[in-house]
Amino acid sequence: MTSPTEVVVLLSGGLDSAVTLAILRSEGHRIHGLTINYGQRHAIEVERAERIAAHYDIDHRVLVLDLRMIGGSALTSDLSVPKDRDERADQIPITYVPARNTVFLSLALAWAEVLDARAIALGVNAVDYSGYPDCRPAFIEAFQRLASLATRAAVETGRVPTIVTPLIGLTKAEIIRRGATLGVPFHLTHSCYDPEDGVACGRCDSCRIRRRGFEAAGVPDSTRYVDHAAVGRG
Amino acid sequence: MTSPTEVVVLLSGGLDSAVTLAILRSEGHRIHGLTINYGQRHAIEVERAERIAAHYDIDHRVLVLDLRMIGGSALTSDLSVPKDRDERADQIPITYVPARNTVFLSLALAWAEVLDARAIALGVNAVDYSGYPDCRPAFIEAFQRLASLATRAAVETGRVPTIVTPLIGLTKAEIIRRGATLGVPFHLTHSCYDPEDGVACGRCDSCRIRRRGFEAAGVPDSTRYVDHAAVGRG
Repeated sequence: MTSPTEVVVLLSGGLDSAVTLAILRSEGHRIHGLTINYGQRHAIEVERAERIAAHYDIDHRVLVLDLRMIGGSALTSDLSVPKDRDERADQIPITYVPARNTVFLSLALAWAEVLDARAIALGVNAVDYSGYPDCRPAFIEAFQRLASLATRAAVETGRVPTIVTPLIGLTKAEIIRRGATLGVPFHLTHSCYDPEDGVACGRCDSCRIRRRGFEAAGVPDSTRYVDHAAVGRG
Repeated sequence: MTSPTEVVVLLSGGLDSAVTLAILRSEGHRIHGLTINYGQRHAIEVERAERIAAHYDIDHRVLVLDLRMIGGSALTSDLSVPKDRDERADQIPITYVPARNTVFLSLALAWAEVLDARAIALGVNAVDYSGYPDCRPAFIEAFQRLASLATRAAVETGRVPTIVTPLIGLTKAEIIRRGATLGVPFHLTHSCYDPEDGVACGRCDSCRIRRRGFEAAGVPDSTRYVDHAAVGRG
């Protein structure tokens, strides 16, 4: 996108969405952050999203949608979060939340229509990730096509927000280097799926991917982990 | 669908979704009703959905998602509901709720994955309706395609729920006749966008379409309308 415009950024409180926000902001767009409080086990994410939004002084909304009513994930039920898993294994892990990005993009599409936003930005990544189906380019393309048929704005004026995913082809280390260049407040971002009193476990997929990313990028990570001894093992 | 299976039915509390439920039930499927309490002006809908679910003794969940945070519709903000509008006019009216069916289908997709349901049923209609973009066959087809890429079940086992829309090509009178044959408790269904103390206004799009439908079907409608004098004008 070349000229400044309104953009809805799905802001989870994690690292990737914060870097996505910073990229769109650096291009001069006016950012509207959307966070979904979906009853996630790691509710600290939502608080972090609020702090990141405050840091960037953006318009920000938190929508409450209790996906624990539906369950089906270790993040929204009492299933255990896997630890020390080989996250490059083929199987999609039980931290997968059913249709999460479909739901989140739908809500972003609704708000984008109200704001007349020209883009929806999502921090999905299909390189250093957990294999979630709704992080892949084919999924994003199918949602883009749906968006072109779903709204009054699309039908009456042909205006359809572009789904932008600036991180989709980057490694975690590349994402972190990009964020460091842009001054992303990494200390405000949260990755752990299973924190104890706000302290990261260090052993879930998300912690492992984060730790390896910072190491590979050569960027210091101020995250506190429960298993200090394991730092660097990743 | 031929053999009995689990089906998620989006149940609004309105007439169309009740007939949809009855059709799927008559085919022998096990029904799981999903109602979204989205902060709609006509909140009585949700109570009616609960009564319809109780009538059919089905599994039923009500998800709370306050779309007033997003607004953009006469149903979720303080915009006025249009009265006595020619609902066959070209323009999509302000009772359109941004991306509503995209959001609702996404949530149904999530629950369908958890239940391993083979279908999601939606009472959309593209004949006697208000011209909403997300009631058209092209929209439903695009959502079906998205669903085939969005979930773990789709990727790992190829299981994708079929989006079924048994009413999409029927007139309102045909829907009502079908419902009457199946014994749908019409007295529990609610259509009005702008009820006063639970009494239908008789003049919004939804009331007008309902009234004309019952008249054309030759089926009595027990709905109480505010403007008794206007009954039959439709």
